Amino acid sequence: MQNIEAYQKSFLSYLEDFAVEKDPGNLYRPINYILKLGGKRLRPVLTLMTSEIFGGETKDAMDAALSVEVFHNFSLVHDDIMDDAPLRRGKETVHEKWNLNTGILSGDAMLILAYQLFENYEPNTFQALAKLFSKTALEVCEGQQYDIDFETRNDVAIPEYLKMIEYKTAVLIGAAMKMGAIVAKASENDQNLIYDFGRYLGIAFQLQDDYLDAFGNPETFGKQVGGDILENKKTYLYLKTLELGSEEDICSLLEVMSNNSITNAQKVDTVKKLFDDSGASKATQKAVEDYTNKAFDVLKSLNVSEDKKQLLRLFGEQLMNRRV
Amino acid sequence: MQNIEAYQKSFLSYLEDFAVEKDPGNLYRPINYILKLGGKRLRPVLTLMTSEIFGGETKDAMDAALSVEVFHNFSLVHDDIMDDAPLRRGKETVHEKWNLNTGILSGDAMLILAYQLFENYEPNTFQALAKLFSKTALEVCEGQQYDIDFETRNDVAIPEYLKMIEYKTAVLIGAAMKMGAIVAKASENDQNLIYDFGRYLGIAFQLQDDYLDAFGNPETFGKQVGGDILENKKTYLYLKTLELGSEEDICSLLEVMSNNSITNAQKVDTVKKLFDDSGASKATQKAVEDYTNKAFDVLKSLNVSEDKKQLLRLFGEQLMNRRV
Repeated sequence: MQNIEAYQKSFLSYLEDFAVEKDPGNLYRPINYILKLGGKRLRPVLTLMTSEIFGGETKDAMDAALSVEVFHNFSLVHDDIMDDAPLRRGKETVHEKWNLNTGILSGDAMLILAYQLFENYEPNTFQALAKLFSKTALEVCEGQQYDIDFETRNDVAIPEYLKMIEYKTAVLIGAAMKMGAIVAKASENDQNLIYDFGRYLGIAFQLQDDYLDAFGNPETFGKQVGGDILENKKTYLYLKTLELGSEEDICSLLEVMSNNSITNAQKVDTVKKLFDDSGASKATQKAVEDYTNKAFDVLKSLNVSEDKKQLLRLFGEQLMNRRV
Repeated sequence: MQNIEAYQKSFLSYLEDFAVEKDPGNLYRPINYILKLGGKRLRPVLTLMTSEIFGGETKDAMDAALSVEVFHNFSLVHDDIMDDAPLRRGKETVHEKWNLNTGILSGDAMLILAYQLFENYEPNTFQALAKLFSKTALEVCEGQQYDIDFETRNDVAIPEYLKMIEYKTAVLIGAAMKMGAIVAKASENDQNLIYDFGRYLGIAFQLQDDYLDAFGNPETFGKQVGGDILENKKTYLYLKTLELGSEEDICSLLEVMSNNSITNAQKVDTVKKLFDDSGASKATQKAVEDYTNKAFDVLKSLNVSEDKKQLLRLFGEQLMNRRV
C-alpha cells in the first residue's frame, strides 16, 4: 500500500496529462484552471486507496479517481456562482476571472467530461460506475437545493439538516470509495460497506466542520473561525441550540443574530457561549463521534485483512484530526 | 410505421409519466415546467422513428428518446441564461420565472437525468448510448462556446461557421437518430450512416433557418423575421455577403449595421437587398440544397428497404419545407 502523499503525487501527474490545452480555448482554459487550483485531492486519493485495498491496480482506478475530482470541481464552479463567491482557495473563482457564462458552460462541460472518463472501462464496470455517479451527482444537486431552501426557512429539523449534509457532501465521499471498489471488482457487499464507511465519515467530517467553524483553532482551521456565525448559517450547532437551549438561550440567540449594532467579535463570542451553555457544543461533538464510530463499525463486516482495516481506520482518524 | 403525430403523442404520454412532482420541489418543478412547455418534440420523434426503421420496438426506444429531449431542454435552460432571454416559446424562461441559481441547478440536474435514462438498457447498449451522448453533449457545449466567441470576432471564416452550427445544432439531430439505431441493434455501418443523414439534415436545417430569418414568410416563420439582422448576427447570409459582395456591398453592410439612426424596417430592407445583390441569398439557398442532397445521398448506402428510405426522404422534405 502507498501512503497518501504517494497517491496524491501519482494522481497529480495523471491530472497534468488530462488538463491540456484544447479548442475552444475559452471553454477548456477555465476547466484546466480550476482543476489545477490545488486542494488536498481527498476524493481521488480515496478512490485509489480503496481500489488497492480490494486488490486493484492503482493505474486502473486512475480514470475513476479523475472523474470524481472533475465532478467535484464542476460542483465548485457552479456553487461558487450560486454563492456569488469571489475566491476559491485564495484565487479568483471561474465566473470572477472570466464571466458568468464561462462559469456555466465550462461547468457543464466538466460534468460531461466526468462521465467520459469512465469510457475506458468494460461495459459492465462502465455501467456500474456511471449509475453510481448519476445517483450521487443528482443527490449532490438535491443537497445543494436543500441548502438553498434552508436559508429562507426557520423550521429546519435536525434530520432534514443531516440529510442535506449527507447529500451535499457525504455521498460523494462514499461514492469515491465505492468506485475504487467497483474498479477492483470487490463483491457487491463490500462495495456497499465501503460506501457506508465513506458516507458516515463524510457526515462526521461535515459536522466537525460546523463545530470547528465556531470552536476551531484559527491557526490550523482553513477558514475564518466564526464565519458561519457571522453569516447566520443554520449549522448543526445552531439547530441543536434551538432544540436543547432554554427559552432564554433561544431568545438570546435569535436576538444576537439580528443585532447589527454589536461588533463581529462580540457576536461570535456571544453565540459561542450560547452554543456551550445550551449543550449544543457537546451534542455536536457527540454526533461527530457517533458518526465516526458508525463508520468504524461498518469496517467489522468488511471482507479484507485486518491490516487493511487498520489502514482505513488510520485514514478516518487522520481525516477527523484534520491531518489529511 | 407510425406517422409523426402518432410518435409525438406516445412520446408526450411517456414524458407526462416522467415529469412528476418530486422532492426537493424547487429543483424538480422548474424541470417539469420546461419539459412541458411544448415544442415539436422533433428529436425524440426522430429517435423513435429511426428505431422502428431498423426493426426496433417503439417502447424500447422511449428512454433514449426522452434522454435526448431532456438534454435538449437542459441546453435551452442554460443557453437562455447565457443569452439573457426572457421568453421561451412565448412563456417565461426558467431563470426569469424563478432565478439564476434555479436555472443553473435545475439545468445541471437535467443533464444528469438524461444519463440516468439510459440505465434500463443492458450494459453494451448503455455504454454505446452514453458514449454517443457524452461526445454529442460536449460538442454542443463547444458549439455554444464558438457561437459566443464569434460575437466578438470579425474574421469568422465560413468553415468555422459551418463547424459551429454542426456542433451546436446538427450533431444532436444525428445523435437522436443514431440512438434509435443503437437501441434497435442496427449494424455499426447503418448507425453511422443514419448519424450522417441526421447531421447533414441538421446543417441544412440551420442554414435554412438563417435564410428564413431574413426572407421567410412572417405568417409561417416562427420567429420575428429580420431578427438576426437587427441583432447584427454573423449568419451564413452575412458571412457569404462578406465573401461574395463587392467592396461597395461590404462597406454598405458594415455601415448599415452600425447605423443607429435608421428604422428597424429600413435596416432589414437594406441588408436584405445587400444579401441579394451580393449573391449571398442564392449561395445560401444553394448550401441548403447541397446539404440536403448530402443527407439524401447517404441513404443510398443504408441497409433498409426502399420504402423505409422513402419515409426518411419524406421526413427530410417535410423538415426542409418546415411542415414538421
